[in-house]
Amino acid sequence: MEDSAVSKSMKRPTPDSPASEWKKWKHEVRKNRTRQVDVDLEKQHRKEAAQRIAIEEEKQRQKEEEELKKKIGYNHTISIALPGSILDNAQSPELRTYLAGQIARACVIFKVDEIIIFDEAGFSSEYLRKHFFPKHSDLQYAGVLNPLDTPHHMRIDDECEFREGVVLDRPVKGGKGSFVNAGLRKEIRIDRQLRDGLRVTVRLDNKQTDEDRRYYTGKVVSPRCPCTDRGLYWGYTVRLASSLSKVFTESSYKNGYDLTIGTSDSGDDIDHATFSKFNHALVVFGGLKGLEYSLDCDEKLKIHEVNDLFDMYINTCPKQGSRTIRTEEAILITMAALRPRIIQALNT
Amino acid sequence: MEDSAVSKSMKRPTPDSPASEWKKWKHEVRKNRTRQVDVDLEKQHRKEAAQRIAIEEEKQRQKEEEELKKKIGYNHTISIALPGSILDNAQSPELRTYLAGQIARACVIFKVDEIIIFDEAGFSSEYLRKHFFPKHSDLQYAGVLNPLDTPHHMRIDDECEFREGVVLDRPVKGGKGSFVNAGLRKEIRIDRQLRDGLRVTVRLDNKQTDEDRRYYTGKVVSPRCPCTDRGLYWGYTVRLASSLSKVFTESSYKNGYDLTIGTSDSGDDIDHATFSKFNHALVVFGGLKGLEYSLDCDEKLKIHEVNDLFDMYINTCPKQGSRTIRTEEAILITMAALRPRIIQALNT
Ligand SMILES: C[S@@+](CC[C@H](N)C(=O)[O-])C[C@H]1O[C@@H](n2cnc3c(N)ncnc32)[C@H](O)[C@@H]1O
Ligand SMILES: C[S@@+](CC[C@H](N)C(=O)[O-])C[C@H]1O[C@@H](n2cnc3c(N)ncnc32)[C@H](O)[C@@H]1O
Repeated sequence: MEDSAVSKSMKRPTPDSPASEWKKWKHEVRKNRTRQVDVDLEKQHRKEAAQRIAIEEEKQRQKEEEELKKKIGYNHTISIALPGSILDNAQSPELRTYLAGQIARACVIFKVDEIIIFDEAGFSSEYLRKHFFPKHSDLQYAGVLNPLDTPHHMRIDDECEFREGVVLDRPVKGGKGSFVNAGLRKEIRIDRQLRDGLRVTVRLDNKQTDEDRRYYTGKVVSPRCPCTDRGLYWGYTVRLASSLSKVFTESSYKNGYDLTIGTSDSGDDIDHATFSKFNHALVVFGGLKGLEYSLDCDEKLKIHEVNDLFDMYINTCPKQGSRTIRTEEAILITMAALRPRIIQALNT
Repeated sequence: MEDSAVSKSMKRPTPDSPASEWKKWKHEVRKNRTRQVDVDLEKQHRKEAAQRIAIEEEKQRQKEEEELKKKIGYNHTISIALPGSILDNAQSPELRTYLAGQIARACVIFKVDEIIIFDEAGFSSEYLRKHFFPKHSDLQYAGVLNPLDTPHHMRIDDECEFREGVVLDRPVKGGKGSFVNAGLRKEIRIDRQLRDGLRVTVRLDNKQTDEDRRYYTGKVVSPRCPCTDRGLYWGYTVRLASSLSKVFTESSYKNGYDLTIGTSDSGDDIDHATFSKFNHALVVFGGLKGLEYSLDCDEKLKIHEVNDLFDMYINTCPKQGSRTIRTEEAILITMAALRPRIIQALNT
């Protein structure tokens, strides 16, 4: 490299060249070498500077990211539990689907993270699972269901950092990732090679380097990420419990629920209730015969008073004008009544 | 009477009786007369005392009645208005009926006194009226409707001072009233003669004098009476308005509504709202396209900003998880969110 640099400015003398020629050449080589060192040093400096800037920029980005997370992201969750039996009371398959849709929508409106369907009196909730699975919008508009219209059910031109999508059967060449269809005008190329058909949450890269490229680029993230990083509600999961007690004991959160609320018209007046800070709240609803009956159905539970099952047992609609409030109504009413209290609890 | 009183103790002498006989008799008459006066006076005193006691008792009863009224009765009313168009979006007649039932139940749960259905974009709400008319329980259990289960939809053995009933085609003899069928085991005899078929609110007399009688006795009262006197919710009335402006201008309350609330996801955050005391509150909901659209449809309204139409324009579900909340959901959510604020406003 040294030589080639020199060679650019002067030809190496031949063995039979005069000494003066050699002296001149050596001088030139030395001069060039210094110049080359200067050039290399400068290049090196520039590279280091660029790296320093990149590192600074990345640090800044991460700091901003952390601040954004702290400001708008959140880690707490809200679960609701209800007996599968309530769909039993619907008078036709059409109305049953409609009722399931009502419940799903109530959960979405109030950003519920988990729906737990529990069995009551030997009645299995298994067949109900499909009703509560969040559907993609194309399916949702069919039939009697009202669209859930959560942020993660995107329309084609919605702009959002996150997208739900399905891994396609067409890996990127050289095992360098997969393509995902996320309902956008272009596919997304992700950094990992995944089984096709898998449902994934993708975070689109901040800078889409080339506008003209035929795909976007992004990374697969956890479905909780939109919520924890950006405060975006990303839908609910569904869990089945074969008894009321398993609603509590089979929690998917490591330390279980740290705020449990039972609901009943014979509970304590909500207007006098205050809530403590929580990570994972659980609100439990009964069926036609209420939670007392759900408790009676659970042979494992040795508790006699249903309110002993919960941190709080509350009436969320004091002085109701109807003798009885139906479970699907009680979900909307209860969540609306809890909303300001939950905010207050989280801000303490 | 004097004579007959005397005659009990002594026979009147004949004209030819000796003077001594007459003297004795006169003496006896005088003595008896005094005795009779004593008896009469005592009777009189007893009667007066009884009257005094009755008056005192009645005063006491009225005082208790007034106190009860003050304590548990109330005069304020809550009306809600919504466009008839919302039933248009239902996908089948069955679901339309179900939707109407949902709205009726939401109103009953939150003790709404008046439902106003207004026309939007030349669409007439007339045919919807029947959907919202409170039905009697026997009809309600039919079809897809969930029972409203208000206190005035009584079951046969419910005990209550008030009853809804229908005047029978069988007047009481001598025009002294009518008989009413109020779904009880016996009919009620009311104090006024009314046209048969009329729907009436009856207050059963406090003391049903004769347990063995084949009817109860009672008085016809205003349908507001259970509420104003006993704080009992007695269902809602239905009013049709041919435009949004007529919701306000054709109020059945003498001085109109003194607290008007518009609802929208672009309204002010309810968590920062406080309400002033009111007599007649009105909460207005929009249809699929919101109240902005309802305003646009009303040619008479010269207002440009929809929030100028109301005392308050509020978002009752801040940070909702679904892009849009449907009117039937918004009613439950809004009324649940307003409930504690309404109580607070009424107690100031
Ligand atoms: C038909 S009710 C059950 C019967 C009974 N009236 C009760 O509340 O326990 C169905 C469910 O709706 C909920 N619910 C009904 N009224 C409620 C109220 N005033 N407050 C809170 N939850 C209520 C409860 O979860 C209840 O188990
Ligand atoms: C489908 S929305 C209408 C569209 C629009 N998103 C809005 O709220 O104006 C139907 C009605 O539900 C009520 N509504 C919906 N979201 C609401 C919210 N967050 N707060 C209060 N009312 C709401 C309003 O009365 C609205 O007119």
